[in-house]
Amino acid sequence: MDKRNLALLTDFYELTMANGYFKHGMKDKIAYFDMFFRKIPDDGGFAIMAGLEQLIEYLDNLHFDNEDIEFLRNKKMFSDEFLEYLKNLKFSCDVWAVPEGTPIFPNEPIITVAGPIIEAQFIETMLLLTINHQSLIATKANRIVRAAHGRSVMEFGSRRAQGCDGAIYGARAAYIGGCVGTACTISDKELGIPAIGTMAHSWVQMFPTELDAFRAYARTYPDNCVLLVDTYNTLKSGVPNAIKTFREEIIPRGFRPKGIRIDSGDIAYLSKEARKMLDEAGFHDCKIVASNALDEIIIRDMLIEGAQVDLFGVGERLITSRSEPVFGGVYKLAAVEENGRIVPKIKVSDNAGKITNPGYKQVWRLFDKKSGKAIADLITLDDEVIDESKPYELFDPEYTWKRKTVKNFTARKLQVKIFDKGRCIYKSPDIDQIRNYCKEQIDTLWDEVKRFENPHKYYVDLSLPLWELREKLLREHSIE
Amino acid sequence: MDKRNLALLTDFYELTMANGYFKHGMKDKIAYFDMFFRKIPDDGGFAIMAGLEQLIEYLDNLHFDNEDIEFLRNKKMFSDEFLEYLKNLKFSCDVWAVPEGTPIFPNEPIITVAGPIIEAQFIETMLLLTINHQSLIATKANRIVRAAHGRSVMEFGSRRAQGCDGAIYGARAAYIGGCVGTACTISDKELGIPAIGTMAHSWVQMFPTELDAFRAYARTYPDNCVLLVDTYNTLKSGVPNAIKTFREEIIPRGFRPKGIRIDSGDIAYLSKEARKMLDEAGFHDCKIVASNALDEIIIRDMLIEGAQVDLFGVGERLITSRSEPVFGGVYKLAAVEENGRIVPKIKVSDNAGKITNPGYKQVWRLFDKKSGKAIADLITLDDEVIDESKPYELFDPEYTWKRKTVKNFTARKLQVKIFDKGRCIYKSPDIDQIRNYCKEQIDTLWDEVKRFENPHKYYVDLSLPLWELREKLLREHSIE
Repeated sequence: MDKRNLALLTDFYELTMANGYFKHGMKDKIAYFDMFFRKIPDDGGFAIMAGLEQLIEYLDNLHFDNEDIEFLRNKKMFSDEFLEYLKNLKFSCDVWAVPEGTPIFPNEPIITVAGPIIEAQFIETMLLLTINHQSLIATKANRIVRAAHGRSVMEFGSRRAQGCDGAIYGARAAYIGGCVGTACTISDKELGIPAIGTMAHSWVQMFPTELDAFRAYARTYPDNCVLLVDTYNTLKSGVPNAIKTFREEIIPRGFRPKGIRIDSGDIAYLSKEARKMLDEAGFHDCKIVASNALDEIIIRDMLIEGAQVDLFGVGERLITSRSEPVFGGVYKLAAVEENGRIVPKIKVSDNAGKITNPGYKQVWRLFDKKSGKAIADLITLDDEVIDESKPYELFDPEYTWKRKTVKNFTARKLQVKIFDKGRCIYKSPDIDQIRNYCKEQIDTLWDEVKRFENPHKYYVDLSLPLWELREKLLREHSIE
Repeated sequence: MDKRNLALLTDFYELTMANGYFKHGMKDKIAYFDMFFRKIPDDGGFAIMAGLEQLIEYLDNLHFDNEDIEFLRNKKMFSDEFLEYLKNLKFSCDVWAVPEGTPIFPNEPIITVAGPIIEAQFIETMLLLTINHQSLIATKANRIVRAAHGRSVMEFGSRRAQGCDGAIYGARAAYIGGCVGTACTISDKELGIPAIGTMAHSWVQMFPTELDAFRAYARTYPDNCVLLVDTYNTLKSGVPNAIKTFREEIIPRGFRPKGIRIDSGDIAYLSKEARKMLDEAGFHDCKIVASNALDEIIIRDMLIEGAQVDLFGVGERLITSRSEPVFGGVYKLAAVEENGRIVPKIKVSDNAGKITNPGYKQVWRLFDKKSGKAIADLITLDDEVIDESKPYELFDPEYTWKRKTVKNFTARKLQVKIFDKGRCIYKSPDIDQIRNYCKEQIDTLWDEVKRFENPHKYYVDLSLPLWELREKLLREHSIE
């Protein structure tokens, strides 16, 4: 669908650095970068990986066209040799990534890129943008879906999205996170996210009376009739007119009424009253849809108050993740090859939380064999093997006296190889597979990790060899 | 640049309604819609209009291709006649809009669309999405620019933007709001927003020592050398190595050092110390750039603490408008033509703030002739004329006893006509003209409107004829 050449959707410094590496004869130096994030949005217990399919499309299509090259030439900062190199550039890195829909946790590498420094560095901006955006929205959507406790949640936010891609791919991420569909039609056409929708207040206003508007809609869509009941007065006008319409236009045509939608007012109260009125009319199967500035907190509270809502339409607070609109994924150098040897690199910081995990690494998720639940994630160096037949001692990388020995577990590598020397060797699952996988994987987390307030902090530990390497490099870099 | 067909970037209900209007013989009924917003983000004193150029491109290009039609046909909800109509649809509405860069206020129509109901309704989603997104970011950027008090602000947030368009058009909106440029290269190529950038921490890590990395960069860009000094230790390593590099690599080549960048730590303190060290080395003209999770509040506080920063690079908190990531623009039916007569429409709500202003309207901005300052905005019916030669009495539409008579003023219509029966008759100014116009127009606001805490509420009043119409319709719609 997206025919734009987005090669120049990159921070300008990626280009100044690339030109510098080229000039200094470093273009073929192999570098290892990790993408990871430091904090779960909304202080939640886990995040959800999303956006990989779009990242793959970008990397598969990465090229500089003549227009790009001429634009850069006009900057008068880049050598002709470098521009010639860019013109012929084909992505040649190895990429490993955690599949979409996987619950992810802070500080573990969710993507690892290894390859010539210019390429591996250059892709930083789009890699982060794509994964940060969709992981943010998938994570937020799943919170809202969890709050709805089995009721359906629709994504309704296109008009408040931050740009077209915010709407299009936001709908995709919301679906991965568990929404049942979107209002965004193009996301259905291009990405297979089911789009639905019925009427706005303007439909009701365009007819002489509310009843006229309802009748006209019912005649057009007798098999799928959802009526918006709050244009004038929900309980005194909207619901009675809807019931009248259902009786006179839907039932005689052999259909059942599909639903009513309430978009304003005190939805907990209105939905309970509307439910009674619908039930009294014999329309027990007529659903109640609620919309209007919803989020996980409002939905949870509405349900505690006994709101009779079957489907929630959630707009701006989902599509922008309003309570925390930033997913802070970063992309950091982890190692460099020198004479065929992998030399680990670390980024030191006064802020302990900003120190990176050095080296070429693997992430494992340990599952309890009996319950099937996830116990902990473990970051190791690449060549470590976890022997499932023996007890494994985990320890907290900060408070190393906190220890736990796990037995009777399985260990699964979280990253899969996506690109081999620039060739894509991974086929993205279809969107429903991703959505189902996401649900299954979240089911492996204990409930304590899923709650909104003070969720249990899931363990992400370092293996002893990785921890020792980190300590050694920190000592080497400490400056008096 | 954008060759995507975004016709189906629309809420699905726009299509179900369109099909319904078509079926009921209402397709040529003329409707009037207003876009307006209800609340200024961050409780600020004003917002900034942006995104119109992209909206114009969308409307100019609006068409349904065969793929779109076949997708809709497969939904089995739309009649063949309607799909044939869509296939041949060409936008034919009139559109009026407030030019980009104009300060805008709640409840005034910033865009008005008049035309056949199907078209005028259909464009709602993209119209809102485009204007909401860019107005949000322009408004936020201007807050940050105001906090910087004449120092430069760069937009650095692509990697945390909500999708590609969030980055590309966010950079555009930030520039309109007063940023001096962006890190997003494609926004420079496609939209003329100056892109700059230098190096990441990984550059420093790729060389054996920090000094090696600085020297290599200085030799590559001797005329534009900005060094990132916080990879290991800003004051003990970064700044001394930068000074050494400037002395040994920049000065001998006949250039002056351009700057240093600090991306972590206590920037107020570090910048003051770094300034002393640079000054002692004779590099008074070497700028200090600060980045790292900045926003208008942090910048204001840093400057109060005496931070020595010349240029701020602002990332995620600008590109997502993190403190309020939603610009709540809405699009409401205001009138319908019946037998050639314009019949005003109102949306009633229990929430007084959600009641709409009915009718086909105009917005005026009244300026004090002597000071040139904006006094108030006034919404009138379309046929009202404001006689500048006579005193005009303004009154608060809610507390009608609050009155003010203005004299010696000029009245300027805020909306200009953009489309005439579907033909674009407006040429967007170039981006620098928009940016300059924005600055000029903000200069017409009193300082009291521009402050962050409890800004003065700028008056947006209704003319007496409009107020009386609104009261009359409210009485007619009130339900016992």
